[in-house]
Amino acid sequence: GNLVYYPRRAPRPRRCQSHTNSLTSHTPPPASQPLGEPAEAQSGRRDREMECKDVGILAMDMYFPPTCVQQEALEVHDGASKGKYTIGLGQDCMAFCSEVEDVISMSLTVVKSLLEKYHIDPKLIGRLEVGSETVIDKSKSIKTWLMQIFEESGNTDIEGVDSSNACYGGTAALLNCVNWVESRCWDGRYGLVVCTDSAVYAEGPARPTGGAAAIAMLIGPNAPISFESKYRASHMAHVYDFYKPDLASEYPVVDGKLSQTCYLMALDSCYRQYCAKYEKLVGEQFSISDADYCVFHSPYNKLVQKSFARLYFNDFMRNCSSVDNDAKEKLQPFANLTSEESYQSRDLEKGSQQLAKHLYDIKVQPSTLLPKQIGNMYTASLYAALASVIYNKHASLVRFWFYASILYLYAFVSHVHSL
Amino acid sequence: GNLVYYPRRAPRPRRCQSHTNSLTSHTPPPASQPLGEPAEAQSGRRDREMECKDVGILAMDMYFPPTCVQQEALEVHDGASKGKYTIGLGQDCMAFCSEVEDVISMSLTVVKSLLEKYHIDPKLIGRLEVGSETVIDKSKSIKTWLMQIFEESGNTDIEGVDSSNACYGGTAALLNCVNWVESRCWDGRYGLVVCTDSAVYAEGPARPTGGAAAIAMLIGPNAPISFESKYRASHMAHVYDFYKPDLASEYPVVDGKLSQTCYLMALDSCYRQYCAKYEKLVGEQFSISDADYCVFHSPYNKLVQKSFARLYFNDFMRNCSSVDNDAKEKLQPFANLTSEESYQSRDLEKGSQQLAKHLYDIKVQPSTLLPKQIGNMYTASLYAALASVIYNKHASLVRFWFYASILYLYAFVSHVHSL
Repeated sequence: GNLVYYPRRAPRPRRCQSHTNSLTSHTPPPASQPLGEPAEAQSGRRDREMECKDVGILAMDMYFPPTCVQQEALEVHDGASKGKYTIGLGQDCMAFCSEVEDVISMSLTVVKSLLEKYHIDPKLIGRLEVGSETVIDKSKSIKTWLMQIFEESGNTDIEGVDSSNACYGGTAALLNCVNWVESRCWDGRYGLVVCTDSAVYAEGPARPTGGAAAIAMLIGPNAPISFESKYRASHMAHVYDFYKPDLASEYPVVDGKLSQTCYLMALDSCYRQYCAKYEKLVGEQFSISDADYCVFHSPYNKLVQKSFARLYFNDFMRNCSSVDNDAKEKLQPFANLTSEESYQSRDLEKGSQQLAKHLYDIKVQPSTLLPKQIGNMYTASLYAALASVIYNKHASLVRFWFYASILYLYAFVSHVHSL
Repeated sequence: GNLVYYPRRAPRPRRCQSHTNSLTSHTPPPASQPLGEPAEAQSGRRDREMECKDVGILAMDMYFPPTCVQQEALEVHDGASKGKYTIGLGQDCMAFCSEVEDVISMSLTVVKSLLEKYHIDPKLIGRLEVGSETVIDKSKSIKTWLMQIFEESGNTDIEGVDSSNACYGGTAALLNCVNWVESRCWDGRYGLVVCTDSAVYAEGPARPTGGAAAIAMLIGPNAPISFESKYRASHMAHVYDFYKPDLASEYPVVDGKLSQTCYLMALDSCYRQYCAKYEKLVGEQFSISDADYCVFHSPYNKLVQKSFARLYFNDFMRNCSSVDNDAKEKLQPFANLTSEESYQSRDLEKGSQQLAKHLYDIKVQPSTLLPKQIGNMYTASLYAALASVIYNKHASLVRFWFYASILYLYAFVSHVHSL
């Protein structure tokens, strides 16, 4: 084959690497803004109630393999028409694990890196949650491999396991950690969330939508990125659009068209529920213009473009004042489509994307840096998008709108207080 | 083969069964003690703080396959010496899934059964967590199959995924649900925990330690079985004693001797940490005499006997006043063993079991009913033991000591307020 490899960094074959390809290493927190200190273990409940505000992400680190393939070269190799992957899918590069690494080595690397960079004593970790849909062993969790990092410190008292539910497992792991800090059993230590996946597809149309990465997030109170919990909305359903029934194969079975429709249906459902909860509690209509940035799970960038346009169409259907008259006029012909028709209409898809383009450039484009360069990272994809916004816009962050997971979906809003 | 099948009930091949082999159906809650009502969704945080006391298990249901093999017959079939499985392992029967059921059908059955028996509106479930180490699909979670039960009600807004970490996944799922109810994001609805597993071993010494069952537990505040969170202790380590690296096989790879030592080491570690936390907070020494019942994860009954004796030995080493002088004298010869030597000493094992026998009969035996009859249920095993105590002792329950999971272990105490 004539694939062009673009090594971002020399491969490091050791299981536990001390230096990583890292986003957040470029922007360490200034010394004047130290990490939120964990409360001393076993302090009284009342004290913890006081301390336990703004629970969220205190620090973040990311690792992705040093090897990738450029989508332009993959087009040539596959005999695909020029632009099919770069414009059709909207992707630039695709990272992949070579034979010296896997989801376990990536997660070991990123956890060790985060603890070292932010000078976190391993004894101060009280919960460790892993989100992944890449199965190396059917019983032994990835979390147990990560316990090696804590062996030397003697800290074996760490709750948390692996969460699995396609791409949503990382978000489940994050929410579990946040809930733990807010619960009565919190002992004052940090939570640590790891999202690690390697997305590999059989030869065919899905192959260019692979990718690989691991992300680690330190969780605790008084966080610069905290979660608004009251308007959270989820959509879970029993669908066979993406699954891995052949246990011996690393390839999923994918129904691409069904999977895309599921993504958009779940997006609609989450957004509808989210808006209803927001409006009930706040007493005002919500529209995407109220969010400074929207962060989506990104199987490939084109689906993110379609999703944002779909939210814009939702706002039109909800008669939001933020949709201008010109857009209203242009979307009017689609107002009476059934929802099934609306998912299939190419004209609506194209029209709404054009109308939402000016908002996409402001609210979504800053989140697309890493997902376009690395590809689909499954559980880590949403948080790579979040890291991209932080990297691009850390001077002016206010409010996000999150959207996670290709299949089983979920939406939440995060307030960013300072960075 | 000359295996004797002992059908407990006629097989019901439908995926979703409306009647199940059930423990709790024999003891429905009296009408004068209704289930704790969930708070209305989205009520204010202050109200929820008030309501959110005594979070724990409101209701429980269990399903196990109608087919099993008697261990006596299995001894004959395997050409094993008489008593090897019944006395050596301490097991009576072993349930197994026939070709018409699996972990998914069992979990569908038990969830439907619990909702029907306790008249729970499916819309009132806000979180659904599954613990399992039986992998049917590497990406699609068991939780998504269970979403079928909620389809008709239109409730798709249900958080939670599958938790996987060998036998500990069920306990992780339970703790996640409890933390959710205690967190800021709780919307007033019930949590639902499902533990479902089928334990099947390759021909050889581990085969008689199989089993199969699913357990469902409804979680909310004001529960008759609530969890004491302050003294919880976990022990997590990276060990290859039990794992499933051959993804195409349903058999685990087991190092029986190492696995048993791991269990006892983790038990020691949890108990030591638990006692230290208890003594720091309460200011009194803890010993097993302070617990009315001890509930263990039960791969086979003999290991439960050994584990309880090990706790008794711990109390001796900690110089607890509850260990009488006769026992102190008999255990003195083992006081100077290294901990490694103490795990290998047959004399200590036998001696401590004899000395603890009178306490075992009171504190542990009531929990052994279902695990001895059904076999190892992996994630469901601990909760089958809990259900056994409730069944046997519901008139006089006060306090438990829990111990979960064969590999990656964990301990917590539960207060039972009333039943």
